[in-house]
Amino acid sequence: MPIRPDAAMDTDGRRRAVIEGVRPEIDGGRFPIKRTIGETVIVEADAFADGHDLLSCVLLFRPEGVRAWSDSPMSSLGNDRWRGSFTVTDLGRYRYTVRAWIDRFATWRRDLEKRVEAGQDVASDLLIGGEMAERAARRATGEAARRLRAWARVMRAAPGSDDSRVAALDTELVALMRAHADRSFAVRYGKELTVVVDRERARFGAWYELFPRSTAQQPGRHGTLADCADRLAYVEGMGFDVVYLPPIHPIGTSFRKGKNNATVAEPGEPGSPWAIGSPSGGHTAIHPDLGTVADFEKFVRRADELGMEVALDLAYQCSPDHPWVKEHPQWFRHRPDGTIQYAENPPKRYQDIYPLDFETRDWRSLWRALRDVVLFWINRGVRCFRVDNPHTKAFAFWEWLISAVKDEHPDVIFLSEAFTRPKVMYRLAKLGFTQSYTYFTWRTAKWELVQYFTELTQTEVREYFRANLWPNTPDILPEHLQMGGHPAFVARLVLAATLGASYGIYGPAFEHMEAAPAALGREEYLDSEKYELRWWDPARADSLSELIGRVNEIRRENPALQSDRSLRFHAIDNDALVAYSKATEDRSNVVVMVVNLDPHHVHGGWLELPLEDLGIDPGQSFQVHDLLTDSRYLWAGPRNYVELNPQVVPAHILRVRHRVSTERDFEYFL
Amino acid sequence: MPIRPDAAMDTDGRRRAVIEGVRPEIDGGRFPIKRTIGETVIVEADAFADGHDLLSCVLLFRPEGVRAWSDSPMSSLGNDRWRGSFTVTDLGRYRYTVRAWIDRFATWRRDLEKRVEAGQDVASDLLIGGEMAERAARRATGEAARRLRAWARVMRAAPGSDDSRVAALDTELVALMRAHADRSFAVRYGKELTVVVDRERARFGAWYELFPRSTAQQPGRHGTLADCADRLAYVEGMGFDVVYLPPIHPIGTSFRKGKNNATVAEPGEPGSPWAIGSPSGGHTAIHPDLGTVADFEKFVRRADELGMEVALDLAYQCSPDHPWVKEHPQWFRHRPDGTIQYAENPPKRYQDIYPLDFETRDWRSLWRALRDVVLFWINRGVRCFRVDNPHTKAFAFWEWLISAVKDEHPDVIFLSEAFTRPKVMYRLAKLGFTQSYTYFTWRTAKWELVQYFTELTQTEVREYFRANLWPNTPDILPEHLQMGGHPAFVARLVLAATLGASYGIYGPAFEHMEAAPAALGREEYLDSEKYELRWWDPARADSLSELIGRVNEIRRENPALQSDRSLRFHAIDNDALVAYSKATEDRSNVVVMVVNLDPHHVHGGWLELPLEDLGIDPGQSFQVHDLLTDSRYLWAGPRNYVELNPQVVPAHILRVRHRVSTERDFEYFL
Repeated sequence: MPIRPDAAMDTDGRRRAVIEGVRPEIDGGRFPIKRTIGETVIVEADAFADGHDLLSCVLLFRPEGVRAWSDSPMSSLGNDRWRGSFTVTDLGRYRYTVRAWIDRFATWRRDLEKRVEAGQDVASDLLIGGEMAERAARRATGEAARRLRAWARVMRAAPGSDDSRVAALDTELVALMRAHADRSFAVRYGKELTVVVDRERARFGAWYELFPRSTAQQPGRHGTLADCADRLAYVEGMGFDVVYLPPIHPIGTSFRKGKNNATVAEPGEPGSPWAIGSPSGGHTAIHPDLGTVADFEKFVRRADELGMEVALDLAYQCSPDHPWVKEHPQWFRHRPDGTIQYAENPPKRYQDIYPLDFETRDWRSLWRALRDVVLFWINRGVRCFRVDNPHTKAFAFWEWLISAVKDEHPDVIFLSEAFTRPKVMYRLAKLGFTQSYTYFTWRTAKWELVQYFTELTQTEVREYFRANLWPNTPDILPEHLQMGGHPAFVARLVLAATLGASYGIYGPAFEHMEAAPAALGREEYLDSEKYELRWWDPARADSLSELIGRVNEIRRENPALQSDRSLRFHAIDNDALVAYSKATEDRSNVVVMVVNLDPHHVHGGWLELPLEDLGIDPGQSFQVHDLLTDSRYLWAGPRNYVELNPQVVPAHILRVRHRVSTERDFEYFL
Repeated sequence: MPIRPDAAMDTDGRRRAVIEGVRPEIDGGRFPIKRTIGETVIVEADAFADGHDLLSCVLLFRPEGVRAWSDSPMSSLGNDRWRGSFTVTDLGRYRYTVRAWIDRFATWRRDLEKRVEAGQDVASDLLIGGEMAERAARRATGEAARRLRAWARVMRAAPGSDDSRVAALDTELVALMRAHADRSFAVRYGKELTVVVDRERARFGAWYELFPRSTAQQPGRHGTLADCADRLAYVEGMGFDVVYLPPIHPIGTSFRKGKNNATVAEPGEPGSPWAIGSPSGGHTAIHPDLGTVADFEKFVRRADELGMEVALDLAYQCSPDHPWVKEHPQWFRHRPDGTIQYAENPPKRYQDIYPLDFETRDWRSLWRALRDVVLFWINRGVRCFRVDNPHTKAFAFWEWLISAVKDEHPDVIFLSEAFTRPKVMYRLAKLGFTQSYTYFTWRTAKWELVQYFTELTQTEVREYFRANLWPNTPDILPEHLQMGGHPAFVARLVLAATLGASYGIYGPAFEHMEAAPAALGREEYLDSEKYELRWWDPARADSLSELIGRVNEIRRENPALQSDRSLRFHAIDNDALVAYSKATEDRSNVVVMVVNLDPHHVHGGWLELPLEDLGIDPGQSFQVHDLLTDSRYLWAGPRNYVELNPQVVPAHILRVRHRVSTERDFEYFL
């Protein structure tokens, strides 16, 4: 709100600096930005004052629990823009803001230089300088105070003399005056902005989704958590970081769905894991056929031994048989005919599921119960939650839940499975979701990949929305995978794993290249394991598991691929080829990807690289080393030809190898 | 700041709608937007909720003194964006914000239609509808309540029947339910935003600057305010709205400048009007050679009779002889040698001027004294102030001053003469200046005119920065006027008067095409009347006064030229020609300008107009009527050829005349 006249008289009108346009700042500071440990926050601001006086500008920052601000100098970029940065080293929240003041000494010194140059009498100016040094001495202590007093004496002693002029411009004096600057009229930006700091996994990780009930040793048996624990070595062998399990809770029997989503289940059919709750329990129980909570804890320990972690599905909905339906009927919406409102998207009906009513008068107890579900699994070793359809539950609830959980457990990761409208997806990210599913699943043409990933990585969106890219999910077998065969699966894998530092696949359907839809024009899998037990042969010969393992290995070996902020697309004169690069800040690791988006034809084209941006000497040839095939190419200049045969490998992952000269005039490629 | 978990539990968690991205909103609502009476404020916002429920969204607005909000429906633009508008009718400040809620009835009705279409049993749904109507009846009174109860009865009576289904979808019920909607979980956007509403002159007006002391009847005499009053008919004859006078106060004698800014004045030289203050008085006194305050009041009355108003120069600085120097020495900066700090831009010195010290401990009394200067002249009939160098005085002071003055006198206009860095100019506009000088004075190439005026009129800048375009000022005789002769003066006049709804000239130097600089490469006028008396012959034969009169007449006759918001540039295939249009909202007045920027050569080119945007039927030929020359051209289609000879007239001001068909199949051009 504009400042009113009477209020202005109550502040100190002598504060002449102004600060505005601070970035990053999400919705006027309403939402935090996100970083992981070790990342840098670069802050820019407009800062200026009336007149021609020089300004000093610093970035203030502190972990939320620490009262005292640290500061870091900001440097002028021209046009009244300033930039500074700080690195976040601890989990949790940091605050940052900007402070500026008129640097009277720097202004005086600049003017003095001009006066001396013009041969003007500067006696009076040196007296002013002496006075400033004297006052600075009063703000200083010890040796600094002593030195400042000495400078003051020199300037005041013979203010017209050469000595005093030289003294005034001495760099020691500059440093001392800067360290003891007069900040009495300093201005602080009106807002404290927030950074949420997560662990590395929030930025970088490969996820693997599988149905535990489909991991039995033999076909026809209901897999258990113990079977699934045995399968973990296979998942680890492919290099995944997170194993994500669809709901593992008891499944309701009322209106249970049958094979291929049949309205009525045959006796013995297992039902959908998302119809949560039966007389055996709800969101904190384990399906009896999978095992016990103790089995689950063993499963988590086994994953941990293999260097992986477990993500659970947080699906806040109930089957009609969920204990909450009887214990807390007020958490559901009741219809005038006395029945409970089941889930619908008219005219479609999902009678096996009751949504929770976030407009219940008893919302506080509902919120607490839902939080307690999270805390229950946190206490069993879970630190990752994939949240089912968060866009159908109240925003205010999520903001509260995530904040409440992360206040105690700042290492917890919430992945939003909101496949919905862009502003809704972004709002969920702003209010706290650590990561989010994306439209990647359906972005297949070059122009839309370029447009979408530029938006995600080069606009303000990147400050709060962390993409997790999935080529398939149990709900989505996209058309291009149905039609494109092996080349399409490989291309989509490489795209997901290199466009996104975080990505995931739903397996073994993915590595087995499962491609049959429930019906033509639909994205549902035929014989989806959402509704039946499946058995997958982990040793299948035509599996993509080895390739997936290689891609995940490349991701681990190349830090450039572990963040999305450096992603840049590059021109290539063929619409079937998309080219992009990622690089570390110091350019010691630069990786260039080229993907043939057409699964049916060989395509070639001239790729244009901005060599200097990538740290490549434009006057030298350089090697690109294909990490997928181990081929090496010698390239020179910004334009080079590439060709990809989808039947062989539809993608390049090219590590740039710089030519390095040694002292003995011997060259090698780094 | 992010909402903390404990605070979330204190609000009502059942409010599911969210509102964000409200525009216009300047710096998170810190500054108001600007409008003039009768203008519209179009507000957009993102509004949405979780799930698939439909939303209702309204724009709330009120004059600041009125407690109750008015509301106006917002309509959905798709992608969760909403738009609404309101018109400001009163001077002063308005507030606006946005409110949204889940429209349960509309959602229910949408779903019911789908269910009916799918042939589903809707008995239970009709009971729900009946219940909603019953509850709405409780919120309504009289006939509306009676009708709602009747609808509720129909729906509940035989909920499966055709009757009740038809009833549920009736439009009368829709209207009643909308009027008595359940807003109990309505959400209001977290900020109230502000509009400052000015009078028309803030948006549209032609300014004329002249030195009263140069208006004597005969050369060699010091003109008086009475002489100047006699000159007003001449100014009015050219169609100007505002007469702006450089400072009319007593002028100091200490360090008085002589002719052509000589460091020492000869005896009898008048000095610069900006060296304000002598023993005869300061900022509230009239220079004795000009007359008295009574003469000034007569001058204002004469201007008023002629339909013009008077703008004074607010130059907050003092000559060493200003009464404040003795009365309030603490308002100036003192140097260690006991002297007062004069104005400087090292190594340049302006010893005839003392700046005020905005860091004085006595800043409150200084601020009040400066405000009282404004109030003094307001009480003598002045409503326009051209503020000299506001960027060298504290921002906080201006925000306070303008707000304090406009709280009592909302019709006052402050024009900022800040020729400085862009962010400083914009900050002054944000904090309250009604209008501002611009870089137009130096923007001469096509690309820079297009870029700059697109920024001013098509970005957020237009919400707070109102341009006032000056081709010359007493301080600036730009190079292109020095070199370009008659064609340059005419072209710059037409550009100023048509790119800017507000513009001004410094005359008679402008209409007499005064073009000699003080020295080659400088922008100062030779023999500038800032330092000496000049005499101008208002009847001079080669004056541009008649052309200026015609241009101002065109501006008054064409409402399209009275606002800058509709400005659009158009493609023309010649870099020496710039083309643009302005149009009223209803397209009843459309004016197209083409200006030849090269004063030396004839240029022609093909102009491309977006006919439909300008309300022109692309299938019909149309007339363009040159309002400067009275020529008419018959054009057809979007591409037409224009040619301009700078020696004749270097510009077209083309009024589009639509072809109108009458009932009797007779066509004419409107």
